[in-house]
Amino acid sequence: MKEFWSAKAKNLTPYTPGEQTCTDSLKLNTNENPYPPSPAVARAIADFDVSRLALYPRTDGGEFKTAAARINGVDEKNIFCSNGSDEALAVAFYAFFDHDVRTPEIGYSFYPVWADLFGIELVKVPMKADFTVDVCRFAGKGCVIANPNAPTGIALNLHELKRILENTSGVVIIDEAYIDFGAETALPLLASHKNLVIVRTLSKGYSLAGMRVGYVIAHSDLISALDCVKDSFNSYPTDMLAQKVGACALLDSSYNALTCNRVIKTREFTASALTKLGFTVLPSAANFVFCSHKNLPAHELYLKLRDRDIIVRHFSAPGISNFLRITIGTDEGMQQILEAIATIIGQ
Amino acid sequence: MKEFWSAKAKNLTPYTPGEQTCTDSLKLNTNENPYPPSPAVARAIADFDVSRLALYPRTDGGEFKTAAARINGVDEKNIFCSNGSDEALAVAFYAFFDHDVRTPEIGYSFYPVWADLFGIELVKVPMKADFTVDVCRFAGKGCVIANPNAPTGIALNLHELKRILENTSGVVIIDEAYIDFGAETALPLLASHKNLVIVRTLSKGYSLAGMRVGYVIAHSDLISALDCVKDSFNSYPTDMLAQKVGACALLDSSYNALTCNRVIKTREFTASALTKLGFTVLPSAANFVFCSHKNLPAHELYLKLRDRDIIVRHFSAPGISNFLRITIGTDEGMQQILEAIATIIGQ
Repeated sequence: MKEFWSAKAKNLTPYTPGEQTCTDSLKLNTNENPYPPSPAVARAIADFDVSRLALYPRTDGGEFKTAAARINGVDEKNIFCSNGSDEALAVAFYAFFDHDVRTPEIGYSFYPVWADLFGIELVKVPMKADFTVDVCRFAGKGCVIANPNAPTGIALNLHELKRILENTSGVVIIDEAYIDFGAETALPLLASHKNLVIVRTLSKGYSLAGMRVGYVIAHSDLISALDCVKDSFNSYPTDMLAQKVGACALLDSSYNALTCNRVIKTREFTASALTKLGFTVLPSAANFVFCSHKNLPAHELYLKLRDRDIIVRHFSAPGISNFLRITIGTDEGMQQILEAIATIIGQ
Repeated sequence: MKEFWSAKAKNLTPYTPGEQTCTDSLKLNTNENPYPPSPAVARAIADFDVSRLALYPRTDGGEFKTAAARINGVDEKNIFCSNGSDEALAVAFYAFFDHDVRTPEIGYSFYPVWADLFGIELVKVPMKADFTVDVCRFAGKGCVIANPNAPTGIALNLHELKRILENTSGVVIIDEAYIDFGAETALPLLASHKNLVIVRTLSKGYSLAGMRVGYVIAHSDLISALDCVKDSFNSYPTDMLAQKVGACALLDSSYNALTCNRVIKTREFTASALTKLGFTVLPSAANFVFCSHKNLPAHELYLKLRDRDIIVRHFSAPGISNFLRITIGTDEGMQQILEAIATIIGQ
């Protein structure tokens, strides 16, 4: 009906998040980590003084902000905390972008949604034939890129990031949601580039998708812009437990390295096995692989896997509709999907 | 510097949340509940399976949504869940308002901030001389009113709410943040008024300010608009623990009634004691009182209370700058502030 909707709301096309299944299916569709969060998280929750919940949390992320500053070797004034990195990205779009914001044509599908929400002109830059980002075409007023990119998994190196930062007159957002799985962080470029905004999440590398914790690293003047927009939208986006849990997870860096290295190892054997089964697998630095079979159409394979209670992600967007994005789970989970695929393609 | 800020961000004046003190001061400035959350909340947190945090939460609030529907006797399609009621209000402003949105001149100071954020024309309607809402002047395209109102504490009755709903051509948001402390909810008007949006929070009556849980009750077509805007901003705003904790708190209605009735009783003796000390105290249906002393200027009293480590809220806005908003704490807390005030004014 939309009888009482605002003119702006009537024109929105929202983001479609990956399905959350309630069954015992093998869930390889939303890039969640197959390992539980750090044992420090369980201890933090068990020790939490519940009576404190009657009070408002810190507006700035509190101990989570302190931990994020410490593990990245920056000052607290360079950190902004958020309810997952999606909220940080939404706030950053409002805070920094007006027009001529460039983004790879194949990328995180929430970017165009935020641009529409806030009336920002987003320019989609075509990929090179091998699905890499065409770095020399990023020379606009703003830029947003996931590195490694989603859903391709392909990463840019520091040299390429530097070039984009130098050719863009305004802010460059590097969305490092998948940075824990092998790509180079843009962090070394922070001191020399005041227009760099690095966005992180604890949903992937830290196994905390259920807790909604993300943060931004940037020059303090950019952090002030984020604070200003946040305080014009929702002053307290990270709750007390999220702040505590986020801090404990970040500070347990050895657990983070252990689980992420396991995922990387599993990704490598999965990519190699898929190649043997006749897939083209893009070189991934993330916790997923993006692949296309030489004979079997991606959507058909997607449906056949679903019949076997294995859920992967298929995007119908032009250029990638014959690919599937498969999250890297445990070794056992990947064996299970590889066997299912082998059966489906009759090998 | 604002060198890299967007044009829109440069023009924002953010909301100023009440100060969160770190000391052992008597904190009566942000309307937090002096009692801890329901014992069911502590049990829910203790029993929570931390390994589940590796997965994304439900996008729609899950069990929290189910509980909110049940305690209000509505269908789940009439409920929208959010990260505190501030987020619900922000999303609702975007979803429903364009221009001629009326709000009482004295009201929640976040309303004009959301209007500015989204370019909405907000019309401030002057109060009557006794600080009540001038109901007959609410006849615009939209309306947002806190009931009971903040920071006055004065409530509208069902008859007055009905009149506003019938005279407004678009959506009427009734912000029931303080509804647990004695005012009439607009809920009985829901079936007959498709333009009614009721916003609730668990921050006040349920002692869960630290957990960030709020919800909306409205016609399903309005809930769809909220979902559409939310899914264009941040798909997963309530985390898994918030969903579980929110559900347990809502379902323990007897604990809610017990603690809120205690607060009401304390409010009544506080208001009566303040009157005896020479204050004008507006009739409050909330967990705070709004009062002005016949001799001592409000800002001076605010500073003198601060010197004694007692924090209350002072607003510098015209018309209310000689008032203080004092949150209702425990009986002991209120005795403490009453004694301090008596000493300050030399009685």
